[in-house]
Amino acid sequence: MSPPPKTSSESATEMVEVVLPNDANPMGFMLGGAVMHLIDIAAAITAFRHARAPVVTAAVDSLEFLNPIKVGDFIVLQARITATFNTSLEVEVLVFSEEALTGRRQLTSRAYLTFVTLQRDGKRERIPQLLVTTEEEKAQQAAAHVRRAEHLARRASAVQGAQRKQAPTD
Amino acid sequence: MSPPPKTSSESATEMVEVVLPNDANPMGFMLGGAVMHLIDIAAAITAFRHARAPVVTAAVDSLEFLNPIKVGDFIVLQARITATFNTSLEVEVLVFSEEALTGRRQLTSRAYLTFVTLQRDGKRERIPQLLVTTEEEKAQQAAAHVRRAEHLARRASAVQGAQRKQAPTD
Amino acid sequence: MSPPPKTSSESATEMVEVVLPNDANPMGFMLGGAVMHLIDIAAAITAFRHARAPVVTAAVDSLEFLNPIKVGDFIVLQARITATFNTSLEVEVLVFSEEALTGRRQLTSRAYLTFVTLQRDGKRERIPQLLVTTEEEKAQQAAAHVRRAEHLARRASAVQGAQRKQAPTD
Amino acid sequence: MSPPPKTSSESATEMVEVVLPNDANPMGFMLGGAVMHLIDIAAAITAFRHARAPVVTAAVDSLEFLNPIKVGDFIVLQARITATFNTSLEVEVLVFSEEALTGRRQLTSRAYLTFVTLQRDGKRERIPQLLVTTEEEKAQQAAAHVRRAEHLARRASAVQGAQRKQAPTD
Amino acid sequence: MSPPPKTSSESATEMVEVVLPNDANPMGFMLGGAVMHLIDIAAAITAFRHARAPVVTAAVDSLEFLNPIKVGDFIVLQARITATFNTSLEVEVLVFSEEALTGRRQLTSRAYLTFVTLQRDGKRERIPQLLVTTEEEKAQQAAAHVRRAEHLARRASAVQGAQRKQAPTD
Amino acid sequence: MSPPPKTSSESATEMVEVVLPNDANPMGFMLGGAVMHLIDIAAAITAFRHARAPVVTAAVDSLEFLNPIKVGDFIVLQARITATFNTSLEVEVLVFSEEALTGRRQLTSRAYLTFVTLQRDGKRERIPQLLVTTEEEKAQQAAAHVRRAEHLARRASAVQGAQRKQAPTD
Repeated sequence: MSPPPKTSSESATEMVEVVLPNDANPMGFMLGGAVMHLIDIAAAITAFRHARAPVVTAAVDSLEFLNPIKVGDFIVLQARITATFNTSLEVEVLVFSEEALTGRRQLTSRAYLTFVTLQRDGKRERIPQLLVTTEEEKAQQAAAHVRRAEHLARRASAVQGAQRKQAPTD
Repeated sequence: MSPPPKTSSESATEMVEVVLPNDANPMGFMLGGAVMHLIDIAAAITAFRHARAPVVTAAVDSLEFLNPIKVGDFIVLQARITATFNTSLEVEVLVFSEEALTGRRQLTSRAYLTFVTLQRDGKRERIPQLLVTTEEEKAQQAAAHVRRAEHLARRASAVQGAQRKQAPTD
Repeated sequence: MSPPPKTSSESATEMVEVVLPNDANPMGFMLGGAVMHLIDIAAAITAFRHARAPVVTAAVDSLEFLNPIKVGDFIVLQARITATFNTSLEVEVLVFSEEALTGRRQLTSRAYLTFVTLQRDGKRERIPQLLVTTEEEKAQQAAAHVRRAEHLARRASAVQGAQRKQAPTD
Repeated sequence: MSPPPKTSSESATEMVEVVLPNDANPMGFMLGGAVMHLIDIAAAITAFRHARAPVVTAAVDSLEFLNPIKVGDFIVLQARITATFNTSLEVEVLVFSEEALTGRRQLTSRAYLTFVTLQRDGKRERIPQLLVTTEEEKAQQAAAHVRRAEHLARRASAVQGAQRKQAPTD
Repeated sequence: MSPPPKTSSESATEMVEVVLPNDANPMGFMLGGAVMHLIDIAAAITAFRHARAPVVTAAVDSLEFLNPIKVGDFIVLQARITATFNTSLEVEVLVFSEEALTGRRQLTSRAYLTFVTLQRDGKRERIPQLLVTTEEEKAQQAAAHVRRAEHLARRASAVQGAQRKQAPTD
Repeated sequence: MSPPPKTSSESATEMVEVVLPNDANPMGFMLGGAVMHLIDIAAAITAFRHARAPVVTAAVDSLEFLNPIKVGDFIVLQARITATFNTSLEVEVLVFSEEALTGRRQLTSRAYLTFVTLQRDGKRERIPQLLVTTEEEKAQQAAAHVRRAEHLARRASAVQGAQRKQAPTD
């Protein structure tokens, strides 16, 4: 029996953090890797809130860093579910910088992450379906299905590459 | 006048770290975001070693997490330049887990990151060209040019999206 | 000339974090000090968003830890302005734990923090007045004025104590 | 049977730390939350040393930040027991800044924290009584009893508030 | 039966890290203790790679800090086994600073650390012998044996000192 | 003109910390490198307190780890000056583990670190002389002079080694 479906607003997550010196390079710009770390956390919280089951990051779609974030700025992350599949789901994360003294807000990145439920006793848990109602939500869901087809293709090719690449080590 | 060209082996970087409890979820699996943070650092060191100029992360290509990494494992990252453009370059990072007690090594991710030199006085610094000699290097460089075309297209579309999305805040 | 007044919803802040092993004692319960650290950050972001001027924490009102938070739980913080004075303001922070696998949410703490603007050239910046409209907001504001009177009295006595206590060191 | 009583000097704790960039705001002043984190650790060590049983922070009394602490300063914390109750105790923490190059020391905060023993099998462990001998210790103990009455009243009211506030989430 | 012997190149480890603000003093020089922390991690990874058994740090030989490392520099660590004994081994770690913008590399420290296997069921695991072939490796191995004799003598004297020093505390 | 001399008790420093999961290996034992990091901080605070001038770590004498420290234990560090030279000084650090629930205390390490004042305008600052009165202090000072002679010899040889070792990198 499947769990009851949910809307994306039931799991939507907003995070805000102050950018500290250790998250930045010596020029005072936040490291891309520190931004990605927060993107993954915001997305994982959203995925847990929808699935209420243990999930892990399976893939991250291409992402761009459009505007730099400076030490002392706030970083704001807004995450929501765009589509669910049988045992996986996709989360969109929008990342904004916000200047502490002016409130000026700029989009830094839009990221799409896929999470899968962990396997238990040889089978994966089913996750609740996403209730999609508005036109914008339907367009997002369709785009998520396109990204999923691409990432399944990439995954197949990456696994092949991995089998070729893995030199014995010890 | 352009700086002298360099081979990819002159800037290739290998990092290894022990996976600590704070990098992992309560089930003991390393967080995707913690892996991405290290990928960005390994790639940035490689980009600095090639360019010997200040660079920042501009984009990360799609990446998959093929195998989980556990607390107490080693994480090994191998980064090298695949292609250079006028004021930017692409770095490939291979990520492996290595079990501390057995030496068993598995490919976790293959990532491609683009770095750009910082603008100074209205113009960007030129970076050294990449010397490409083997067939494998030529294939990598060609693939990097394909990824670059895709990411310029995505960037244009992301900037447009950003202009629509930015709600006034204060 | 004073800056234009603002409502509390213009600066209200919600943060959510995953509780990591290093934030907890060996029994797996989040340290009170780690909770207080997050309370201060959520409150400071709210204070900056209202004042859009540099502020520092001047005082924290008594706070209770009603329910423990465990490693792997989410900690949710909701901060909003309750009252403004000439060069200072008060922020309320509600802290909840949220179980990742069930969504069960419990109030952990309610904290009140006072922030002051930093002095520049011998005088402090004035901060925007708080627009108070509902009955609940008016009650909060009145309670904040009571807490302020108490904390000015404590401060006077603490400064006296400090003068007695400071043994010469070097 | 009760454990043997102890003096406050048997558990008194002194900590000193260097203030690092990540503990401070971009102006170089130590964050109030970072100070509170250290206060809680110093108090918890003192509480463990007296009780030699697992304890957790139950409450923090109002505290003021009288003087700012700068990056590169030392922060010195002195903690001691002021009073014990059946299954809880109160710790006083004095916080000083110390300039590294001059030795100039200033009182920053005086904090009072309450710790409770963890419940085992439905009952809490009794903790050793505090041996109080000097007039100053007796005055401290009396003041602790006043603070305890206030904090039990606040706790009752906070729990009531919590029951009203807890909106269902999932 | 003993495990098969190994060469030092089978376990040799190279690490590189970016020096961040929190690893440095307010003048921007990397703390000696932060350097030592990385030396221990690089050496421990090498020791695990040779022994493929749980090991802990037993001793660190005298080390000098010849040149300062600055925030924003890279720190490069090269570790390799110099000698094995029955249930312990010695690792050499060379530490270099590398300026990010020029590539200028300077030796900072040369460290020698001893690791021992953990005891299980009253006896320690035997570790693989080190295969030594070149003259340089033989000289290193001989020097390691001299250091070992010195450190066994120091250890005996430290244990004696410890027995005298340990005042009862509680 | 020299600054006035000081006793070792004027700069003696005691630190205590709780051992957290990120400071330990997966078996729960504190990493040698994490212990060394704290040793350096305790010693540096002591050196600043005596010199009241900027100092950096120049050398660490051989040290042994006699007893393991576990997650949840307290680590206690006691640092004091043993000898001063013209522009440098030596600090002894004793490291103890203290079990939180029993108070059982064990000596883990005894370390000796040398700090030098930073050069300004081509010359180093003179530091205050150490006032030595008891027989135990005189013995410590004599031992420090022996260690210093050894470490100057090692330093000369390490610098020679460094000149041979530094391969060109870029």
